Amino acid sequence: MRSVSILATGSELLDGRVVDTNSNFVAKELSERGLKLKRVLVVDDDMSELVQGLRDLSTVSDFIITSGGLGPTSDDLTRDMVAAFFGVGLSEHPDAVAHLEGFFAKRGRVLDSQNRRQTLLPIGATMVPNANGTAPGFAMTRDGGPTVVSLSGVPREFKPMFLDTVLPMIEARCGGVEPIQRATMKTFGLPESTVGRLIEGLKLPQEITVSYRAAFPEVHVVLKAPKSFDLAPHVASVKDALQRDTIFTENPAESFITSLQQLLISKGLTVATAESCTGGMVSEILTRTPGSSAVFHGGVVAYSNDIKERIVGVSHETLETTGAVSAETVRELAKNVRAKFKTSFGVSISGVAGPDGGSEAKPVGTFFVGISSESRSFEMKCLYVSERQNVRSYASYVALDLVRRAVLGLPAPEGYPIFR
Amino acid sequence: MRSVSILATGSELLDGRVVDTNSNFVAKELSERGLKLKRVLVVDDDMSELVQGLRDLSTVSDFIITSGGLGPTSDDLTRDMVAAFFGVGLSEHPDAVAHLEGFFAKRGRVLDSQNRRQTLLPIGATMVPNANGTAPGFAMTRDGGPTVVSLSGVPREFKPMFLDTVLPMIEARCGGVEPIQRATMKTFGLPESTVGRLIEGLKLPQEITVSYRAAFPEVHVVLKAPKSFDLAPHVASVKDALQRDTIFTENPAESFITSLQQLLISKGLTVATAESCTGGMVSEILTRTPGSSAVFHGGVVAYSNDIKERIVGVSHETLETTGAVSAETVRELAKNVRAKFKTSFGVSISGVAGPDGGSEAKPVGTFFVGISSESRSFEMKCLYVSERQNVRSYASYVALDLVRRAVLGLPAPEGYPIFR
Repeated sequence: MRSVSILATGSELLDGRVVDTNSNFVAKELSERGLKLKRVLVVDDDMSELVQGLRDLSTVSDFIITSGGLGPTSDDLTRDMVAAFFGVGLSEHPDAVAHLEGFFAKRGRVLDSQNRRQTLLPIGATMVPNANGTAPGFAMTRDGGPTVVSLSGVPREFKPMFLDTVLPMIEARCGGVEPIQRATMKTFGLPESTVGRLIEGLKLPQEITVSYRAAFPEVHVVLKAPKSFDLAPHVASVKDALQRDTIFTENPAESFITSLQQLLISKGLTVATAESCTGGMVSEILTRTPGSSAVFHGGVVAYSNDIKERIVGVSHETLETTGAVSAETVRELAKNVRAKFKTSFGVSISGVAGPDGGSEAKPVGTFFVGISSESRSFEMKCLYVSERQNVRSYASYVALDLVRRAVLGLPAPEGYPIFR
Repeated sequence: MRSVSILATGSELLDGRVVDTNSNFVAKELSERGLKLKRVLVVDDDMSELVQGLRDLSTVSDFIITSGGLGPTSDDLTRDMVAAFFGVGLSEHPDAVAHLEGFFAKRGRVLDSQNRRQTLLPIGATMVPNANGTAPGFAMTRDGGPTVVSLSGVPREFKPMFLDTVLPMIEARCGGVEPIQRATMKTFGLPESTVGRLIEGLKLPQEITVSYRAAFPEVHVVLKAPKSFDLAPHVASVKDALQRDTIFTENPAESFITSLQQLLISKGLTVATAESCTGGMVSEILTRTPGSSAVFHGGVVAYSNDIKERIVGVSHETLETTGAVSAETVRELAKNVRAKFKTSFGVSISGVAGPDGGSEAKPVGTFFVGISSESRSFEMKCLYVSERQNVRSYASYVALDLVRRAVLGLPAPEGYPIFR
């Protein structure tokens, strides 16, 4: 098997400001295809260090991916490093010029001399397109030696460059790996440890590899097995173990919000939001994907009691007697926002996100969700003990998951996990 | 300066199951003391790979920290690796025997033969105590060669072992290192390439190291120099070059939103939001930090024209004649939400986040921001060509940055990103 290594560059990786997540991403992608990284080496933005690092890796690797150092500033040395490694010079690459001129033209700007540095590639290199940034990547090889592919270090640029261009190159070079099949189940509503325990209890045959990924607050499960293996019955038993309802999609490309959006569109349903502690996070999630205007028309962020009362019409008495964090308040918020915004569903959240503001009766992490529709309204009280931003994310997911359950006619669960 | 490197071992790091957080931890701890990691190398649990990796690092490092491979199972090879590197054998170390016997006795168990493997250390090594697990660490050196310190890979064991034993060893060996000073400038409003060009134009003296970090949509600049160097005048010239206004904080621990929140609190000012394309992202950012209720009472997400008209009171005529993505619409949104919510500022955004919905006059990435206050109201048109979620983030930052500028009495810039 051919071996793949990574050379990650950048002083921000060595002084601790940034965690190298690109290497982990590559490791996972290769692993899913039955390939494994040979080495990861992190070196500083220093010419002799960089070239020495590349030489060290070249003794044990057929394929070296470098990340970082492709920007327009003076500490971006990757182009020079690769040129020095192969003993060639740099020259303006026509594809890189076209990419950068196009990138700037689209923004009504001209390519200045600073950014023009990014068009200089080692002589003999092929450009690797970068759809999400200015810096073009490149690939280079010499007879018998390793292939070196240099990508932008910015994760949202690195990842698509790796998936779109590098992975096919690696698969072409490292062919002959046994094909595998996989089954994905994306869940919400059970803690990762519970998901793990339920699946381990099944004692699946050893042909199956189970991997878990906590994509907070979702938990994804992937079963992998050789293509020749009959995986279907085991997928069915895993789904049963996970109580089926907790699985919101089995499509690896679909996210929580795209699956909910498709569901709402297919039924012609719309949602309005009234948020307190989540401060607009539910509506932000609802509008992340194109086409969201079909299901979402708007909402109110009612952060203070005054706004809850004056703008959303929660009664003064309710706020006085039960408080803002209560079933009564979220009931009125959900009902009133649905009426005002003329939607199928009204969704509301009020809670104590912390770190302050908790009480014995309503500790930090307590939140109420209200769902109102023409046929049915209900409220749920939850407690999720964590840091502020996690409490808010979790509460937002609970609200949206309750909409999903309401649309599908699934029972509202007794209570979402109480991690305490 | 003495140089410190890390050898991280374990197939779970190379197949993507685990992210190597120990290296980032060490990098940060060293960085705070003016030291920097030289290299991080991740290798597989394979004897020849491990020894080769250690040899590679020993050519450039005076101090090598290894993580992982100290457990009781057959894939735990670190003890053998270090012994092979130094050309010595293994023997039961009395301190390690005492540690393990004590560990098991405390739990009412006896030390079995499997766990007894962990008492075998390279001959000549010193034990490094592990208060949180069975595996003792160890340190070893030879005249003139590097010091190798092997620690458990489990973060909650690794971290205290590093802090309690290794850091004092490094400080003792690397004593006399000149302490460094740093100056941080976090900016918003200039692309990274412009920031780089402006600073490179200053031709700073070579004692100063400049590093850049793009924390989208922010760009952070850090200047580092020896403590004895007079950095202040150069910090001043960098600030001038960056037009001062673009720097929202010089405090490394402060974020964009915490600095804005402090500013608003100090002046007793409040904000209300009326968001279209950002769908609640501005209010979500405003409520991320504790204490946000002092400056934020609420907002409206007016995603459809109907909501803009019925709930926020934008005139039907404005929406008909200029459209929802226009200066007139954001002006009415900002003004009306400020009046309804009774705040110091009204902030509004309407735009084309994409990927669809663009036109020749208003391509994808076009957005308008409106700011309304008692003394002054203005609107700004921007074009930021990127993917949907980036356009939304960028637009949210522009809106909040315009509030910052309005509070500080800074001029509104001619146009942001100036990616246009």
